[in-house]
Amino acid sequence: MEQKCDIGVLGLAVMGQNLVLNIEQSGYRVAGYNRTTSVTEEFASKRAQNKNFYAARELSEFVDMLKKPRKIILMVKAGNPVDLVIESLLPLLEEGDIIIDGGNSFFKDTDRRYEELQKKGIRYLGTGISGGEYGALHGPSIMPGGDESAYRETENILQDVAAHTENGPCVAYLGPRSAGHYVKMVHNGIEYGIMEIISEIYDILRKVSELRPPEMVSLFEEWNKEHQAYLVEITAEILDREDPETKSPLIDVILDRAKQKGTGKWSAREGLNLGIPVPTISAGVKARFFSALKDERITISKKMGQVSEEVREISQHELTELLKEALFVGIITSYAEGLNLLQAASDEYDYNLDLVAVSRIWEDGCIIRSAHLEKFQQAFNQNEDLINIIIAPQIKKEIKENIGGLRKLVSLIKPAGVPLIALSSALDYIDSFSAEKTPANMIQAQRDYFGAHTYERVDREGTFHTEWQDIHNI
Amino acid sequence: MEQKCDIGVLGLAVMGQNLVLNIEQSGYRVAGYNRTTSVTEEFASKRAQNKNFYAARELSEFVDMLKKPRKIILMVKAGNPVDLVIESLLPLLEEGDIIIDGGNSFFKDTDRRYEELQKKGIRYLGTGISGGEYGALHGPSIMPGGDESAYRETENILQDVAAHTENGPCVAYLGPRSAGHYVKMVHNGIEYGIMEIISEIYDILRKVSELRPPEMVSLFEEWNKEHQAYLVEITAEILDREDPETKSPLIDVILDRAKQKGTGKWSAREGLNLGIPVPTISAGVKARFFSALKDERITISKKMGQVSEEVREISQHELTELLKEALFVGIITSYAEGLNLLQAASDEYDYNLDLVAVSRIWEDGCIIRSAHLEKFQQAFNQNEDLINIIIAPQIKKEIKENIGGLRKLVSLIKPAGVPLIALSSALDYIDSFSAEKTPANMIQAQRDYFGAHTYERVDREGTFHTEWQDIHNI
Repeated sequence: MEQKCDIGVLGLAVMGQNLVLNIEQSGYRVAGYNRTTSVTEEFASKRAQNKNFYAARELSEFVDMLKKPRKIILMVKAGNPVDLVIESLLPLLEEGDIIIDGGNSFFKDTDRRYEELQKKGIRYLGTGISGGEYGALHGPSIMPGGDESAYRETENILQDVAAHTENGPCVAYLGPRSAGHYVKMVHNGIEYGIMEIISEIYDILRKVSELRPPEMVSLFEEWNKEHQAYLVEITAEILDREDPETKSPLIDVILDRAKQKGTGKWSAREGLNLGIPVPTISAGVKARFFSALKDERITISKKMGQVSEEVREISQHELTELLKEALFVGIITSYAEGLNLLQAASDEYDYNLDLVAVSRIWEDGCIIRSAHLEKFQQAFNQNEDLINIIIAPQIKKEIKENIGGLRKLVSLIKPAGVPLIALSSALDYIDSFSAEKTPANMIQAQRDYFGAHTYERVDREGTFHTEWQDIHNI
Repeated sequence: MEQKCDIGVLGLAVMGQNLVLNIEQSGYRVAGYNRTTSVTEEFASKRAQNKNFYAARELSEFVDMLKKPRKIILMVKAGNPVDLVIESLLPLLEEGDIIIDGGNSFFKDTDRRYEELQKKGIRYLGTGISGGEYGALHGPSIMPGGDESAYRETENILQDVAAHTENGPCVAYLGPRSAGHYVKMVHNGIEYGIMEIISEIYDILRKVSELRPPEMVSLFEEWNKEHQAYLVEITAEILDREDPETKSPLIDVILDRAKQKGTGKWSAREGLNLGIPVPTISAGVKARFFSALKDERITISKKMGQVSEEVREISQHELTELLKEALFVGIITSYAEGLNLLQAASDEYDYNLDLVAVSRIWEDGCIIRSAHLEKFQQAFNQNEDLINIIIAPQIKKEIKENIGGLRKLVSLIKPAGVPLIALSSALDYIDSFSAEKTPANMIQAQRDYFGAHTYERVDREGTFHTEWQDIHNI
């Protein structure tokens, strides 16, 4: 080998392979290693043939191929595999080398690894990469956090590899330690919310309007003119796809049992930990739980029988308008919850996140990309203390234009027994934050009654307790 | 001191004091210790005067007062204080002694302490105690788990101290390790759900019916004939209470900013960890988050303005009927979610829980006591493989009688902009479990589209992947 490689990719499953090809396409020399050598060889002899790709059969060979300070991107399964790979790399690395974890690692694992590696002089970048297989190949959104000097030395490559918009490449240094993986986790949480909102709208079109999938395609296409959202776009394509075997719409032969990995749950759990309501995101997680309990559902649905109430008469035209408005509020609310969680996390974990940058790098390449991200950048640019995007002037105006439709839709559809977990949650999110008065005074009275937990008063400072009953007389 | 004490209570805040008096009243000699001696002395000279209570000024004195094997109930704040107390007790104890942690300890802490103490020959009982100050004094519901031999040797005292129903004392050995604290955590989760359901119904009566608190009293009293639920009972009393200062209803001067301790959040988090939907319980947690963000709510509500839609005309008589039915489904759903979580936890953590016993010991003494607990015992007695109480014959019948009311209520109230976080969640819980078909096929199609996560088919076994786009051509 006449010249060392600029960067190495460890883990050559599809995502790793596509990232290699993307980096190589940008003009870099790339080394690759995979534990199972046959995978490496197959890749080297086919997709990576005649490219500036150098396949290593041994880990030491892989490390030796790299320019110093070495830059190694891990594309392995999150969890224990990352620790094992780091452990086997450590004896081969030198002070100043850079490890970039490109998987969906849990942010607390990233904090731990960052700290352990820092002690050994290895610079760590916990880096979320979104865009799926296609993004990895054509330009993902890249969310790095951790050692800033390591980022600066890797920036050129990451910028060349990332998706690009008018506002620049979809990559930015997000903050110390696990900031990057935290932002990626919340990205995925928002993804869960939007996917469930879309699915519930599909469910209404199917169960209430009784449309067939191909009849729904133009609706999602039409609605997406406003959103320019990847998830809405692929929904239209999915609905349009025919199953080559049965010639039915493919969506009709797919089983309604949804899987999930960790990131959605983690986002919901972080909402609980930080006291930040993320109901639409959590609805996405819960809906997958319900769907996964398919045997239970079949048993219970047989016992409970059909809902007998009818949906009030409504024209398809009118319903379509309500669905359009509901989709809008549901999507915006998913973003609002996620961005609000990031604000709280930035305080809690001292990430010092710049939400303009976060919104900017989500603009393209990633799964939640849409036209809305540009509005969020404007909103945070205009007011960096903005407590929630729902009250940014432009977004507030749009929510007010559309919330009535969501309100009417929920009211209309509830009698039909169609679960609207995310749509109801989105509505309750807006309504709860818009409620100057909640009934939490009752909660506080009850807590003081049974547990002497005290309450505050509306008319003066302090904590107060009422002797609700004379408990001291035994 | 002529004779050693049967048991000692460590921690003499109100709950500890009341437990001492309750145990003493049952005919036992009780030793007591509190870190701040003045608290011990005040208690000894006042409430515990002329009782079989023996106050210790030193920890060693306290331990020496006890019959062997010693039985010590910790009534200290959950968390680090429990570890500190155990650490200082350890040098004073002998093999076979028994420590009973009567606080709301996180179940994983209990697992850890159980294991550490077992190695040292100390028998540990992680024990939930519900009933607040009143229950501690007059008879709580007691949920012990951990060392079974320790339970057997303490059973007489616990049975004498606990609340009693026709079905026996409200205490039973629940299972190994943290089983007791886990059951108590879920008890509190159910409590969160029921409290929020009640609060939302109060909110509707206030904002939609525009009733004053005293006008609501008879409604809750009437509804409670069916439930015999402690939380509904105290709601009526709360609504009836006048503020001695302002002469307004007391509930009107209490600030709507709800506090919470850990147990509700932990239940919601356990739902996430085990993949069990607990939406009504989680709604109770989330509603407290919204309420706690009062400054944000005031800012946002000013910007968003009032909801302009009107509630459809409905007579108070008709609305009252809907609220009654909604309250019923909301309460049952809170229990259903909690019991379902216990079933999953029993499998996950090998607790081998007996839900007949759990429902029996919740029948009295605790905060979630109600007439429904007897039905749950019957349900699990009739079918020990019951997957969810909502399909037990009697309960299913009652849900079907009442769900229409909840459905109409949500449909009716949504246009008014009143947040119905828990009521919507309860409805979606029943509807989601009753849905033979969910739109999770769309989720699976999307996941396969962007992440090649594969899907299952409705017509045959296996996992499948569609090449949605030709991504391999760069």
